Amino acid sequence: DLPLALIAGPCQLESREHAFEMAGRLKELTRELGIGFVYKTSFDKANRTSVKGRRGVGLDAALPIFADLRRELGVPVLTDIHEREQCAPVAAAVDVLQIPAFLCRQTDLLLAAAATGAVINVKKGQFLAPWDMRNVLDKVLSGGNANVLLTERGASFGYNTLVSDMRALPIMAATGAPVIFDATHSVQQPGGQGTSTGGQREFVAVLARAAVAVGVAGVFVETHEDPDNAPSDGPNMVPLSDMRRLLETLMALDRVAKTAA
Amino acid sequence: DLPLALIAGPCQLESREHAFEMAGRLKELTRELGIGFVYKTSFDKANRTSVKGRRGVGLDAALPIFADLRRELGVPVLTDIHEREQCAPVAAAVDVLQIPAFLCRQTDLLLAAAATGAVINVKKGQFLAPWDMRNVLDKVLSGGNANVLLTERGASFGYNTLVSDMRALPIMAATGAPVIFDATHSVQQPGGQGTSTGGQREFVAVLARAAVAVGVAGVFVETHEDPDNAPSDGPNMVPLSDMRRLLETLMALDRVAKTAA
Amino acid sequence: DLPLALIAGPCQLESREHAFEMAGRLKELTRELGIGFVYKTSFDKANRTSVKGRRGVGLDAALPIFADLRRELGVPVLTDIHEREQCAPVAAAVDVLQIPAFLCRQTDLLLAAAATGAVINVKKGQFLAPWDMRNVLDKVLSGGNANVLLTERGASFGYNTLVSDMRALPIMAATGAPVIFDATHSVQQPGGQGTSTGGQREFVAVLARAAVAVGVAGVFVETHEDPDNAPSDGPNMVPLSDMRRLLETLMALDRVAKTAA
Amino acid sequence: DLPLALIAGPCQLESREHAFEMAGRLKELTRELGIGFVYKTSFDKANRTSVKGRRGVGLDAALPIFADLRRELGVPVLTDIHEREQCAPVAAAVDVLQIPAFLCRQTDLLLAAAATGAVINVKKGQFLAPWDMRNVLDKVLSGGNANVLLTERGASFGYNTLVSDMRALPIMAATGAPVIFDATHSVQQPGGQGTSTGGQREFVAVLARAAVAVGVAGVFVETHEDPDNAPSDGPNMVPLSDMRRLLETLMALDRVAKTAA
Repeated sequence: DLPLALIAGPCQLESREHAFEMAGRLKELTRELGIGFVYKTSFDKANRTSVKGRRGVGLDAALPIFADLRRELGVPVLTDIHEREQCAPVAAAVDVLQIPAFLCRQTDLLLAAAATGAVINVKKGQFLAPWDMRNVLDKVLSGGNANVLLTERGASFGYNTLVSDMRALPIMAATGAPVIFDATHSVQQPGGQGTSTGGQREFVAVLARAAVAVGVAGVFVETHEDPDNAPSDGPNMVPLSDMRRLLETLMALDRVAKTAA
Repeated sequence: DLPLALIAGPCQLESREHAFEMAGRLKELTRELGIGFVYKTSFDKANRTSVKGRRGVGLDAALPIFADLRRELGVPVLTDIHEREQCAPVAAAVDVLQIPAFLCRQTDLLLAAAATGAVINVKKGQFLAPWDMRNVLDKVLSGGNANVLLTERGASFGYNTLVSDMRALPIMAATGAPVIFDATHSVQQPGGQGTSTGGQREFVAVLARAAVAVGVAGVFVETHEDPDNAPSDGPNMVPLSDMRRLLETLMALDRVAKTAA
Repeated sequence: DLPLALIAGPCQLESREHAFEMAGRLKELTRELGIGFVYKTSFDKANRTSVKGRRGVGLDAALPIFADLRRELGVPVLTDIHEREQCAPVAAAVDVLQIPAFLCRQTDLLLAAAATGAVINVKKGQFLAPWDMRNVLDKVLSGGNANVLLTERGASFGYNTLVSDMRALPIMAATGAPVIFDATHSVQQPGGQGTSTGGQREFVAVLARAAVAVGVAGVFVETHEDPDNAPSDGPNMVPLSDMRRLLETLMALDRVAKTAA
Repeated sequence: DLPLALIAGPCQLESREHAFEMAGRLKELTRELGIGFVYKTSFDKANRTSVKGRRGVGLDAALPIFADLRRELGVPVLTDIHEREQCAPVAAAVDVLQIPAFLCRQTDLLLAAAATGAVINVKKGQFLAPWDMRNVLDKVLSGGNANVLLTERGASFGYNTLVSDMRALPIMAATGAPVIFDATHSVQQPGGQGTSTGGQREFVAVLARAAVAVGVAGVFVETHEDPDNAPSDGPNMVPLSDMRRLLETLMALDRVAKTAA
């Protein structure tokens, strides 16, 4: 069992400057703490609750920034793709292609992502049982790509609410794929604010601690220097200034969990 | 309140002959009964549980068949699309473009579909509250297309199970859009058979009766002359030979419901 | 299949005068409409959300009123019991003993109720699958009492919400017991108002119509001449003045449903 | 924050010998490990799935054994009660009265338990939101008893399944009451075996680890020297021989959690 890794970054790529600032500070923090780090950012929010939600800078503007982040800062980059055609160009600029939860059963998207040879992180649909990720994983494997991460991000629980079933973590791990716990989207309240999605930032640490104690390969945490003014997912992003303390606790829990396992 | 309409057909377009046979028999039946009819069929099953599931004849083979069904039989045709690029060519061959439930929040797909001017039928995601379909509808309306149907097809209820909340029907109807009840996919047991999705055909009539008594614009029922040997959704398709009796009951309930409303 | 019956009345027994007034008006209405009628009322609300909720007149005050309602008005009476010791004295004064949903698995309560020989109406727990009511029914049957009704009143669906799964009706009917649909408690929002339970009166008719179209032996509807000022369950009781129209619709749907079944 | 405590024992009181054997071995183990310990056992299983399930030795046989366990072994004893009349006599023989989850809203039972002055452990109903335990707690407090524990044991999640929402732990802790996580009943599959309730023993440690990392006052774990031959809850009891390793991990996680909190 390798030590816990971190996938983190702001929800959206806001600008080149913001991306370098965030990635640089996270790189520094994770190096100090000694935890593996992948920088997460999105070039397009393709499924906002409302058509009026801000979507991001777009693919063309983002790709050179992604490439520069990798080259200049030396941090691996993860981003999410939504359409088949995006897979190849995006894979040329990043390390990890992420399949959004709503799209986790779209065969063609999974196969196009697999074909790039990049690491693929598939988020489990809110509508999917953890054992059914076996079929999702097999789609990517059938495309000749064995570098697959599976991410838990909550299951539908009544309306406008998700619940995190910690049993999902060992169930998905039994496939052999590394399992990531997404503590940010697991505390979403989908649609819970009328024309946007709410969140419960206060539970990010709660769920992340639980998942790490069960045993995961990594945690996914969106963070921002000023979440309340971020263009998306503000209600569930962790302030950057809280990340050190959160990570220290998670790393201590991880050591216990992996010694005990 | 207009009388109940029917969207029906086999899950997949299996062949030109099969499509003409099914559409012809359903056209005849619905004309005898005096119920409006739209023929439903899919050219591609893009999100099968397993990568090994049969996907259908594909877009290129399907479009001329769709066009011929409309021209030769005079039946309106509905099919589902999965990617932006499919919207324009498919809309040229059919009457109704259907947005699959998993994709109901993909803004670009909704806008591309809207731009065709075709009637758009959006299925409510299994992960979505009925009131949140207001935002989905607004995405299509913002694309300048007001011909939108909203379809209930079940909500996630624990793992591998859906539940049909009949309150969703009036809640969605309050948006002003006609509401369809999909009695076929509402009885799915997603992933419930390991590498395929199960279903409970015996509850199709149960849920359809309930929905019609509440009051809907139409019902969506997949049917096949031999469901147990159909390439997909067999467990939840109704045998064609049972359709007359089912429709007679639904039409009688519809008359009561719309008199009382 | 016998025609639809009605179990109705106010949530609480408020006073002798109120009980006679309500029972008398409901008796008259149901006689005019030609629908079987059982008068429902509670002498104690034993599981209010808050300890401060009003609980009712109590057992001793209620029993003579129950007996007088039966004798003077000739209406059968149903009430709910909460403890073993209540079964025998209450059964002497009423026709139907009702087991509350939370208590549907309490073996001793079921056996004590069974032993009275009264008709037993068991409400399905919000936490119970419909097929598990077979075991509950068997407990009563093992007590030598075959006069058992099973009532659907919603299943837990996330927090503070219930959902009515219409499949539960035929599943429970397969036990051979008559099935009742409780349209009042199915629209509760348990705990949804902080220290009391909310409700959605506007969905009573929606769910009752759905259930009757599926096919049930009876519906359970709480009603009050002034629900907004009732001591409990006000948010989900139907105004008495709306009952005629609701029942006319339900009876028309019932005729279609039972002709078709 | 006090260190983690343990409530443990077999599901049922099987015999005097068995009780002394189990309590003695658990006392020894917990003393070695330095973890606080309360012995749990039940004299009656009042809500078995089936009327044929074995219920236990009964109140009269159990009370002297409870008293002797306390006196001879010096271990505090917890047991569950189901009816008002049981509260006083049972409280005379044990330290903690436990209110079963199905009964957590029965006002009279809560008040009778409160009146004994014993510590009261209320299990959260599978149908209750965590914030609604505030009202339950207030019922006990209104009875003049402030020694109340609140226990999470899973929430209904579809049929025959529970899910453990780790957010419930800090939500309930905000009432000021110590919060216990019941890792045994949280892995129940209610009714999942037809006429008995199934369980997933392999997830006891998973959920217990998660809860302790979030931060709880104690964990509740049923254990047995031979779970597969135990008269009830066998599928979800932990073998006694696995307890040492489980507790060592939980205590290590607890130290991290409470340092970080």
